[in-house]
Amino acid sequence: MNKINLAEKLSLFQDHWNPRIVGELNGQHVKLVKFKGEFVWHKHDHEDELFYVVQGSFNMEFQDKTVALSEGEFLIVPRGVEHRPVAEKEVSVMLFEPCTTLNTGDTKGELTKESLETI
Amino acid sequence: MNKINLAEKLSLFQDHWNPRIVGELNGQHVKLVKFKGEFVWHKHDHEDELFYVVQGSFNMEFQDKTVALSEGEFLIVPRGVEHRPVAEKEVSVMLFEPCTTLNTGDTKGELTKESLETI
Repeated sequence: MNKINLAEKLSLFQDHWNPRIVGELNGQHVKLVKFKGEFVWHKHDHEDELFYVVQGSFNMEFQDKTVALSEGEFLIVPRGVEHRPVAEKEVSVMLFEPCTTLNTGDTKGELTKESLETI
Repeated sequence: MNKINLAEKLSLFQDHWNPRIVGELNGQHVKLVKFKGEFVWHKHDHEDELFYVVQGSFNMEFQDKTVALSEGEFLIVPRGVEHRPVAEKEVSVMLFEPCTTLNTGDTKGELTKESLETI
C-alpha cells in the first residue's frame, strides 16, 4: 500500500500511445499514458473510459463533435462510442478503465498494445 | 458527454467530508470532496478506494503506519483495511470507488452521508 506520484511515474517513460498500469482497484486499472499526434478511430464495446489530463492538452474527436481537454479536466467516453484522441503537442493523461480494456478497442493494428507494463 | 473541470466543480461547495459525485463509469463513481480535520476510523468490506490529491495535502492513517499525500499523488486503500484521513489544512481530493461505497464504511454516525449530490 504505497502512494503513487504521477510526475515521478511519468518520468519513467517517453514513448507515446503506450499506457502503463500504475494502480488496480475493483477490477479497474489506473493507467498513465502520453499522447502525441493522431490515434486511430475506435470504440470499446464493453468498457467506459475516463481520460484525465495531468499535463498539457488534447482533443477528443467524436463523429459529431470535438471536446478540447486541458490540465485538470476529465472526460468519460461511454462504451460503444467511437472516438479518437488527437494531441498537437505531447500530453500526459491518466486513464481509469476496466482491466479488460484494450487501448485500440475494436480497431486492432500497429498501435495495439496487447499487454501493458506495470510501473 | 461533457468534460468535467475539477477546479470549477470544487468551487461549487465549501463544506468538508461531504463528497459530490462528478462522474460515473463501469459501476464506479468519481467524486470530489474537501477534507479538513480528522475523519472517523472505518473500513469498507467490499470496496477498494482511490484517493487522488487535487490541491493541498493530507495524511492517511492506518493502524500501523501513516501515508502523507500531496498534490499529484494517489493512494489505493484496499477493502477491509481500516483507515482515517486527517487534514491539518483543507485539501481537495478526487475519489474513485464503486457506486455502493458509503463514506464512513462500517462506522455509521454523524459524518455518514447516505445520499450524495451530483454536481
